[in-house]
Amino acid sequence: MPSPATRRLNGSPVAGRAVASLFAARAEDYTPSPIRAIFDLPLGPDDISLAGGNPDLSGLPWPELARLTDRILLDHGEEALQYGATTGRLSLARAIVGEVMAAEGIEADPRELIVTSGSQMSLNLIAGLFLDPGDTVLTELPTYVGALHAFAGFQATVRQLPRDTEGVRVDALVAAIRAAADGGGRAKLLYVIPNFGNPTGMSMSEARRREVAQICVAEGLLIVEDDPYGLIRFAGQRAESLRMMAPEIVIHLGSMSKIFSPGLRVGWADAPAAVHERLVLAAESVTICPSVLGQFLAEAFLRELDWRAIVGAQVQRYRSRAGALMAGLERAMPEGVSWTRPEGGFFTWLSLPDGVDSAELMGRGIERGVLFVPGAAFHVDPAEGRSHLRLSFSSASEERLGEAARRLGALIAG
Amino acid sequence: MPSPATRRLNGSPVAGRAVASLFAARAEDYTPSPIRAIFDLPLGPDDISLAGGNPDLSGLPWPELARLTDRILLDHGEEALQYGATTGRLSLARAIVGEVMAAEGIEADPRELIVTSGSQMSLNLIAGLFLDPGDTVLTELPTYVGALHAFAGFQATVRQLPRDTEGVRVDALVAAIRAAADGGGRAKLLYVIPNFGNPTGMSMSEARRREVAQICVAEGLLIVEDDPYGLIRFAGQRAESLRMMAPEIVIHLGSMSKIFSPGLRVGWADAPAAVHERLVLAAESVTICPSVLGQFLAEAFLRELDWRAIVGAQVQRYRSRAGALMAGLERAMPEGVSWTRPEGGFFTWLSLPDGVDSAELMGRGIERGVLFVPGAAFHVDPAEGRSHLRLSFSSASEERLGEAARRLGALIAG
Repeated sequence: MPSPATRRLNGSPVAGRAVASLFAARAEDYTPSPIRAIFDLPLGPDDISLAGGNPDLSGLPWPELARLTDRILLDHGEEALQYGATTGRLSLARAIVGEVMAAEGIEADPRELIVTSGSQMSLNLIAGLFLDPGDTVLTELPTYVGALHAFAGFQATVRQLPRDTEGVRVDALVAAIRAAADGGGRAKLLYVIPNFGNPTGMSMSEARRREVAQICVAEGLLIVEDDPYGLIRFAGQRAESLRMMAPEIVIHLGSMSKIFSPGLRVGWADAPAAVHERLVLAAESVTICPSVLGQFLAEAFLRELDWRAIVGAQVQRYRSRAGALMAGLERAMPEGVSWTRPEGGFFTWLSLPDGVDSAELMGRGIERGVLFVPGAAFHVDPAEGRSHLRLSFSSASEERLGEAARRLGALIAG
Repeated sequence: MPSPATRRLNGSPVAGRAVASLFAARAEDYTPSPIRAIFDLPLGPDDISLAGGNPDLSGLPWPELARLTDRILLDHGEEALQYGATTGRLSLARAIVGEVMAAEGIEADPRELIVTSGSQMSLNLIAGLFLDPGDTVLTELPTYVGALHAFAGFQATVRQLPRDTEGVRVDALVAAIRAAADGGGRAKLLYVIPNFGNPTGMSMSEARRREVAQICVAEGLLIVEDDPYGLIRFAGQRAESLRMMAPEIVIHLGSMSKIFSPGLRVGWADAPAAVHERLVLAAESVTICPSVLGQFLAEAFLRELDWRAIVGAQVQRYRSRAGALMAGLERAMPEGVSWTRPEGGFFTWLSLPDGVDSAELMGRGIERGVLFVPGAAFHVDPAEGRSHLRLSFSSASEERLGEAARRLGALIAG
């Protein structure tokens, strides 16, 4: 047992003060995610949450997955539960390149892939590798909250670029690069989600991708192409990947999270050789290796199951749900409300009439049993997000999506 | 397909130079682990590696693990493959507190635990939370290479403290704290592995722990108590945990890696409340959540299997192997060689006669079929490690451990 003297020491205010004074400057930038706070709300059976970005796992072939896992443990258990390579398993990288990336029309060398513990980890590694305090990162306006957190964690300055119907505006991109240089700093990265972005559901046209890639090549910026939703397409045509357009400056991020399972924590980064090498070193000091059991199961999913059919059925479900939400919004929304009409992904982005504040609406939404994410989460300047909110159609049933639209319309109206 | 113009742009030297100039200052500190390089060597059947720190998984009950995984996927699949809480599953935290920590005599509140993707991740989160560039971290001399990498990744200055038979020397600790302050900086963290440390296999006495804890309370330092090997004890008596002695300033790190599986990537940090809260925010921006399937399986191991008997049998195996290595070293080592006699863990630390360099010895060891880790890996100043090397007895059979000692003795004798 600790001596009474030690116990007294610990209880002294000195210790408490000491800990608070020890935090690094960057710890101030570790802020709570507003999305997580919404997840933590207790939900009743009648409450409908369109807040989360969870994939629908109900269609997965559970008995087959159990059978695959049996075989992994019984035939390869000592490998699947042991430490693995920091780069991830090469056989998984081959399956990712030959199956997932091929389905997206991206050619890659499995040896240039690093498997990570999900794309959030990829973003953290990239931020650590490139961002000195005060460096500038450019993103879309609005953009994924987890990317904003990863960049803030390394004390970068984030500038968000407005978009038009084709994607990030080129004039805004060039102006932001110049502004960073004029301020004595440097824009190092452009972060984009070119397919069915989070939170807008909107994509970047192929022509715009090419323009943006050429500007970044000329200006010496890296592009981080975050692509978790590329295969969740239910309308329209695929556009070429930025990675294929400008391989020497593009880091392409992919993930098993939306096509199979987020709980395995398996993602990947396909990067130029000079970047790949350093990413591996950074990954080693952050987590040694990704879950090896998760990698085995991800590979079995891609090699042993008809994964294209499984994802195809999921996409049909998301298409129907997107349709149900669109129809519900058409019926229920009052004058002055608009929203995006995505051709894939999980989200639509809703713009409110003047004077309606999405954070305030959220408070009333909780009382009326409809949850969403207020727009502030996706903006560096929270004030910019006030007149917007994100709705997810990935999890709720068509009936509940319609009812959520009805409740939301009533709230906005009044 | 990309236009020829884009292809030309990408192939231009401009793009290559641009990427190289974009790295952050800290990227210079991402250096290759010498241990990983040794792992990458191709081994023949006659080669014996005592380099790795891998647990022996051969005694795990594979059919039972397959049965547990079946139940997880069939009964809880949609939860086990979905996103999880950033803090980890509370039910797993309860099992860790009630089983693993209880077996080590540590009382904890499951709500104050954060489950991480392994202790390397815990170290990375702690380094990010506390270390501004130039801050000082104190460690044992020598210490775990992964900790050195985690601290280097945040540009900290690491000072290594010599030890005596009881652990870190108190005079050296006080002097290093003063020296950091005199240099205008600040010693913020003391990192120690008090039970069967990596690489020495040596522990810190209970009396020394109490002295060190009291100094750190008085001086306002946090202690990071890294404890992956605490239950791998095959002789001697348990000493009280630093976390129990000074809960307000100690972060205790535990892991499933040595008692069950490193491939699941499941570890935990038990931290003072003010630290816990920020660790959770940091974890969210680094990886969202640890592998949920891994957490389910770790919990099932602790709750559904006789895990103490499984670990007990592993410990017997490690005890026999440590004995075989000690006997082999007694037989084979020439005059002037000494080594530690650990009461647990995976490693012994060998000191070479004057004039024998462990890095040079390694080159000859590879030719003669015996691998180990040269001491430089565990030192901030590689020159300090030249006359030492680490041997692991966790993986090789008793017979091969004896043969490895024989080969090593012949090498040293020259």
